[in-house]
Amino acid sequence: MNAQVESEARSRPGGSLEAQLLRRLLRSFGDPPIEFHLLWTDERVSGAASGSPLEHLRITDRRTLLGLLYDPQMRFGDAYVTGQIEVEGDLVQLMVALFQIFAPDARESTLSRIAGWCRRPRRNSLAGSRDNIHRHYDIGNAFYALWLGDTMAYTCAYYPSAEAGLDQAQTAKMDHVCRKLRLGAADSVVEAGCGWGGLALHMAARYGTKVRAFNISREQLEFARRRTREQGLEHRVEFIEDDYRNLSGSYDAFVSVGMLEHVGRDHYPELGRVIRGALTAHGRALIHSIGRNRPDSLHPWIERRIFPGAYAPSPGEMMQIFEPFNLSVLDVENLRLHYARTLRHWLERYGANIAQVRAMFDERFVRMWRYYLAGSIAAFDTGTLQLFQVLVTPHHNNDLPLTRGHMYGL
Amino acid sequence: MNAQVESEARSRPGGSLEAQLLRRLLRSFGDPPIEFHLLWTDERVSGAASGSPLEHLRITDRRTLLGLLYDPQMRFGDAYVTGQIEVEGDLVQLMVALFQIFAPDARESTLSRIAGWCRRPRRNSLAGSRDNIHRHYDIGNAFYALWLGDTMAYTCAYYPSAEAGLDQAQTAKMDHVCRKLRLGAADSVVEAGCGWGGLALHMAARYGTKVRAFNISREQLEFARRRTREQGLEHRVEFIEDDYRNLSGSYDAFVSVGMLEHVGRDHYPELGRVIRGALTAHGRALIHSIGRNRPDSLHPWIERRIFPGAYAPSPGEMMQIFEPFNLSVLDVENLRLHYARTLRHWLERYGANIAQVRAMFDERFVRMWRYYLAGSIAAFDTGTLQLFQVLVTPHHNNDLPLTRGHMYGL
Repeated sequence: MNAQVESEARSRPGGSLEAQLLRRLLRSFGDPPIEFHLLWTDERVSGAASGSPLEHLRITDRRTLLGLLYDPQMRFGDAYVTGQIEVEGDLVQLMVALFQIFAPDARESTLSRIAGWCRRPRRNSLAGSRDNIHRHYDIGNAFYALWLGDTMAYTCAYYPSAEAGLDQAQTAKMDHVCRKLRLGAADSVVEAGCGWGGLALHMAARYGTKVRAFNISREQLEFARRRTREQGLEHRVEFIEDDYRNLSGSYDAFVSVGMLEHVGRDHYPELGRVIRGALTAHGRALIHSIGRNRPDSLHPWIERRIFPGAYAPSPGEMMQIFEPFNLSVLDVENLRLHYARTLRHWLERYGANIAQVRAMFDERFVRMWRYYLAGSIAAFDTGTLQLFQVLVTPHHNNDLPLTRGHMYGL
Repeated sequence: MNAQVESEARSRPGGSLEAQLLRRLLRSFGDPPIEFHLLWTDERVSGAASGSPLEHLRITDRRTLLGLLYDPQMRFGDAYVTGQIEVEGDLVQLMVALFQIFAPDARESTLSRIAGWCRRPRRNSLAGSRDNIHRHYDIGNAFYALWLGDTMAYTCAYYPSAEAGLDQAQTAKMDHVCRKLRLGAADSVVEAGCGWGGLALHMAARYGTKVRAFNISREQLEFARRRTREQGLEHRVEFIEDDYRNLSGSYDAFVSVGMLEHVGRDHYPELGRVIRGALTAHGRALIHSIGRNRPDSLHPWIERRIFPGAYAPSPGEMMQIFEPFNLSVLDVENLRLHYARTLRHWLERYGANIAQVRAMFDERFVRMWRYYLAGSIAAFDTGTLQLFQVLVTPHHNNDLPLTRGHMYGL
């Protein structure tokens, strides 16, 4: 059979029909430096324009290729996970090339558009959120511990210099956040979406603040509470298993690092109401979130396979949280390249511990997470995704420093 | 006649009809600490709740009071200008109290709403902009020189410390802008709306950059060109009398300080297109503009009498400039309290030179500008207005510093 297909392919000028189709597609995308090796016909198809292609892809069967042509964003990831696509060379570099193909300015094929319409994002109701969060964050603390580092911070770090290591940069991120919020020992803080509790404990231990931290991931909270006991911080930090929408009380600071991605656009005014309600007259709030330059849905493969219900807002969309409640935007900082750097550190550690991941899960899982981490590097590297820290305060708060020098120890 | 009115007023329990109406209105606004002295009935009406009122207002005639009740925001300013309202005490403090009454959260009377509908903002077409700009900026450089200080900067200054003087803070603002843009001697800059040319000359003299600066105010340009010759900077700075929409060429930086207020919301995508078109792949753009926490029209008196066609956008509205062109927001800083400080310095100098202003114009003009400056202090003090500096870059620019340390000389 294979021999017959091969001979058929060679008998046509320009190769098999699928090779011709693929070549045409590559041309329409500006001939990216990628070579496809179609195993069932043993053909090699690459962008015609450039010299030697930079990245090589093996595709095992015709069905996978046709899937790719129909819905490249979904099918590429899925076929990588199952091994029907194999990448020879640097996965991150390949993903960068792919992100440049599917850049916001690039054309989208009609088929891709149809495929897009057929997908629907997941809801972030109270129950929906619980389910969405459980699927990603409750797959085992031991797994995350393999590659997140000591801080167990699963959000963009802050590199004071290019030489900083992961743990140092995660701690620097926490300090950067605390300085932006001007935290002192007299302050009370509420945290929405506290992960494994690293920031909450850092605020209490280093800044002496009282912290109430909300999370709906049970596994993360167990870990956070154990660390609180180990560090003897029970008198300052309280972890609460509940949705941010149920928080009550009045605080000097509201902080949320890496939760907004899971809130969902429909719930932004609700989040704004929660923030405004949580702040004292001189209160400050900081939201740290993945975003993008302009409104667009999350990469469909990421939304389906990794972060159900997630969304990365544009700065304008983020303002819909604050504007209805007359909150003043004091400061916005874009840490995009810090996230590419953080993800590189994660992927490096992930790769170094791959045998343990394989022992915990299976090969599909190993490939899925590698693809997700490599793709995320590419997304931040190419400017497809951004990382925004936004600092706000009630409109009548005049108790503000003149400059941002305090964020830099000045 | 006046004796008759007075006796009529005293014969009614609760005073004259207009006094009762005014008392009712004050109550509906939460009894602000303001006392009105109605000269034609010799009645004094103040917020009932608090003790002694902080600010005192004299109103000369019934017609003025009724105008105030119909359209307080427009009529207050107009009556102050003609002297039909006189303020005893601190004008700025009174304006702060008034801004708190008309805060975004406050109720609006039906009459005020009707008055609002009857007003229409001016257009910012090419010809409309020329007319709008001419009305404000071409009233005489000598007048502005009386109170703007040596830098002739008519925009929010940047106070590195509370002790800084006006000229020092205006120079610090220029350096803050240049540092945000990371200007060096190899860079070319285009400036949209360059005022009297202070920033353009500063960039050329201190950073060695080549500058092309656009403005449609002829008087300002004459001044700027004279200063350029005096400083021997003709080889580096070119002033062009044209609209920002007509700029061409490709630059390392685009800068616009205090022009966006005159652009008009309808023209934001046009401005975004101009910015994107003007930037090289590694280009940076900075927009410095008055804004507000959420969309609302400018104070109607300011829009009619001071800045025809002007608008102060919310951060979300500003994003409509950048998002359609996939520009990455790198940094947003809110300098609201710096503008209150700048305006206090201006009002102080204005007051000190009031005799010269009176000699140049007339008493109405003197009062109009005092009211405008005092009201602006109040607007920034109360958080009614904000001041945003937004830094953006093309989405694929990875030539970015890791931190903002360079903005602080680190």
